[in-house]
Amino acid sequence: MLSKNQIKYIQSLHQKKYRQQHGAFLVEGAKSVQEVLQSDFQTELLIATETFYKENSHLTDGQRTPVEIASVADLERAGTLESNNAAIAVVRTKENRPLAVTDHELVLILDDIRDPGNLGTILRIADWYGIRKIICSETTTDVYNPKVISASKGSFTRVAWWYGDIVTFLREQPSKQSVYGAFLGGENVHQLAFSKGGYLIMGNESNGIRPVVEPYVTQRVTIPRYGEAESLNVGIATAILLDNWRRETAQ
Amino acid sequence: MLSKNQIKYIQSLHQKKYRQQHGAFLVEGAKSVQEVLQSDFQTELLIATETFYKENSHLTDGQRTPVEIASVADLERAGTLESNNAAIAVVRTKENRPLAVTDHELVLILDDIRDPGNLGTILRIADWYGIRKIICSETTTDVYNPKVISASKGSFTRVAWWYGDIVTFLREQPSKQSVYGAFLGGENVHQLAFSKGGYLIMGNESNGIRPVVEPYVTQRVTIPRYGEAESLNVGIATAILLDNWRRETAQ
Repeated sequence: MLSKNQIKYIQSLHQKKYRQQHGAFLVEGAKSVQEVLQSDFQTELLIATETFYKENSHLTDGQRTPVEIASVADLERAGTLESNNAAIAVVRTKENRPLAVTDHELVLILDDIRDPGNLGTILRIADWYGIRKIICSETTTDVYNPKVISASKGSFTRVAWWYGDIVTFLREQPSKQSVYGAFLGGENVHQLAFSKGGYLIMGNESNGIRPVVEPYVTQRVTIPRYGEAESLNVGIATAILLDNWRRETAQ
Repeated sequence: MLSKNQIKYIQSLHQKKYRQQHGAFLVEGAKSVQEVLQSDFQTELLIATETFYKENSHLTDGQRTPVEIASVADLERAGTLESNNAAIAVVRTKENRPLAVTDHELVLILDDIRDPGNLGTILRIADWYGIRKIICSETTTDVYNPKVISASKGSFTRVAWWYGDIVTFLREQPSKQSVYGAFLGGENVHQLAFSKGGYLIMGNESNGIRPVVEPYVTQRVTIPRYGEAESLNVGIATAILLDNWRRETAQ
């Protein structure tokens, strides 16, 4: 059973301020908890129903993870999910460390993505297309937000990120690298010869890529429209661009 | 100001049962209401703030649409949106009529799509890619659900749908038509020569295309995976498949 203080601690991690203060975040639900237990993230506390723990205790072998058995009611009171009959893991956040980028990989740059659902979806798509590194502007929503973690469906364990000043970052890149940016009125991605490595910048849901970032884009790209919808959601657009990039550069 | 009875009527339209009983549904928020007023849907009542009405009254010209001026508090009490400082339109549903399909168009078939957000997203994507017709299994979520309408961002005004028995429908199609179905282990869409017309079937979020529908699929298609995410959301998958189809058949 969870103590009042444990519930209070877990509830505090719904908020960014306390996640930063404690260096911890929440992973909720059967699938995501299973994935995080098998990843290189360090779980400081596993809270699980008896059933979930019985079926998954082998995942904590050799890790000395502290475990609390809890009721479904406690899981739902402490966590953010409306229904959770499995588990919550309290997990240590990782240090925000710059990522080493090699010449032949595509790296995603997120310029001010605000919606947690969108960010989680983008992690999942990146993971599907084998993107290993994401660079986020400081204004991009916190990746440790429980909604991001949940929408990523476990993909947060396989993608690395760094939050920082993307203008400074781009300024310091070797000039031969391609920097693709999603814009209206760019080159049709169905006709573009993508390079194998480089950067793809996706901008804010309402305002797109910021004017201070624009000068670093070497190739504007656009998804052709055949009908009348005004726009595509940023998660959908990211998926289509990565699919076209892989289609062009595979083999 | 809205009367108690008006609020009660509008609130009843949150539920499918009452939408069917009254033959009406809700369109909420500035952008969606502007779009529906310019479409061939018939608005039976426009509820708007004074500001919204002043700026948009020309959209109701010649239509004798009854109008009620309401406060933001009333809009939010009567409707489903957490914040709505613009308008709600109460709109007549359309008759559920079979769609005439021509040889050279791609028609989307939805087999048991349950999540309203996914259905709304699919309408928006269909509209982006110029898909004009969607056939929905009877178990697919109600397109008039306010969450579907809202997620479609106005695209529900430009896409036609029919709800019916898709097995019977497919059985009656001329056998020369291609029927694409999204499956694991189908042909890689990056290598497939799509035909200009035909059907694309998208299946349920958890279970995919039903076994009773499978025999009508003439070409299984798969989005190639380059990383480790287990799956893609059905809205994302629809977008990628339609993008590949357009890329292959444009010109």
